[in-house]
Amino acid sequence: MHIIKIIPILDIPIIKENDDLAYLICKAAEKQGTPLQNGDILVITHIVVSRAEGNIVNLDEVKPSEFARNIATEYNRDPALIEVVLRESKSIVRMGEGHIISETRHGFICANAGVDKSNVPGERNVAPLPKDPDESARRIRRRIKEITGSDVAVIISDTHGRALRRGEINIAIGVAGIKPIRDRRKERDLFGYTLKIKQTAVADELCSAAELVIGQADEGIPAAIIRGYPYERSENTSARELIWPKEKALFI
Amino acid sequence: MHIIKIIPILDIPIIKENDDLAYLICKAAEKQGTPLQNGDILVITHIVVSRAEGNIVNLDEVKPSEFARNIATEYNRDPALIEVVLRESKSIVRMGEGHIISETRHGFICANAGVDKSNVPGERNVAPLPKDPDESARRIRRRIKEITGSDVAVIISDTHGRALRRGEINIAIGVAGIKPIRDRRKERDLFGYTLKIKQTAVADELCSAAELVIGQADEGIPAAIIRGYPYERSENTSARELIWPKEKALFI
Repeated sequence: MHIIKIIPILDIPIIKENDDLAYLICKAAEKQGTPLQNGDILVITHIVVSRAEGNIVNLDEVKPSEFARNIATEYNRDPALIEVVLRESKSIVRMGEGHIISETRHGFICANAGVDKSNVPGERNVAPLPKDPDESARRIRRRIKEITGSDVAVIISDTHGRALRRGEINIAIGVAGIKPIRDRRKERDLFGYTLKIKQTAVADELCSAAELVIGQADEGIPAAIIRGYPYERSENTSARELIWPKEKALFI
Repeated sequence: MHIIKIIPILDIPIIKENDDLAYLICKAAEKQGTPLQNGDILVITHIVVSRAEGNIVNLDEVKPSEFARNIATEYNRDPALIEVVLRESKSIVRMGEGHIISETRHGFICANAGVDKSNVPGERNVAPLPKDPDESARRIRRRIKEITGSDVAVIISDTHGRALRRGEINIAIGVAGIKPIRDRRKERDLFGYTLKIKQTAVADELCSAAELVIGQADEGIPAAIIRGYPYERSENTSARELIWPKEKALFI
């Protein structure tokens, strides 16, 4: 029997600009007796990646456009925050119920273009998503290999609301070393029937699994190891595979 | 450090009508050395629940309506299957790209009203979702308590596509003994900032975590134990909490 473990990485210091995030994670994992191993999947919440990359915006230094001010008035929100959301967006998909659902520069569709206020130090600071989350994941993966010698898949996660279900879950915005979708369309079921539509978003499921230990804001656990999941390895992948091509998207 | 384990339950026999599903699961879990314990979460794929409840439809016995035949012609699908999908639906939300996305009698929005062909024995048999998945979960939970004396949360899962992301993930359609949403709106983050919009769909995340061991169609693993996750207990819950109220749904 093959048990999968979800291991929180505790005592990672508060991450700040230019920190060697991969090193600090490796060290913390080792210190708690669960050093990273070949075949592990490391899930990291995007906020510490943005902090390490210095991708933090001080709202006092943002000059809101007229459109941002219009929205802010209508929605009773901070115009500078709306301006940052607009700068991170390439289109707006829905507005309503006080929410702005937009398409980020990367193509992800989410509230506020993924711009986050929580777990960012400084009253007026917000964190946009990493500029290129796949590249961030690849860099962290390479650095882990350097430090530990281990081949570890890296996924950068974010918390997204859903169009058709209430409540947020964690999903993948950057991947390295792992195929984000498991294509099972040619597999057969228990009774020999060929599966017709099974493309499992395993990278998203792994992020949701990791959230079960990461999602403790007050404890500050920014990363988790998933050990024992036999994933499909690939060096040439992107979390963009999890984005619907426009012509296939029935709800956008 | 608090590690969460995802434990597949192997060697559950092929489930058929009137089987005592809870008993067969308990027995298989015990036999493999991981008997169900207080605080465990048991995730069961809906298909075996439908099979045990005899909720299987033989397409040869279905007389398609004219509307079902119209759709079947347009989509090049089996008219009897379309008829079953329509019978399970209370509205159609989108049609396109060969997909019918409908609102099930329970209120879930998904492809084909959740009617499943895979893992159903018999060339012409399909399995609709259980009639009342919360009640199914409660019944299984009570039976597990009778058999083992343990207080186990039960979640019945299904595989859903998503409106805004490619690939399917597992989500919850029935719950017992666990709050499906963790409301974190009054919690504070690492830096003392009060979280504004954090209602985590933990039941869905637990199903996605379980899918990492369940999703092996050829091995036939219909259930998994999640051990070590400190969930909010409740006797008065429903997976319907995971459905958007119509007036809040921006994408429907």
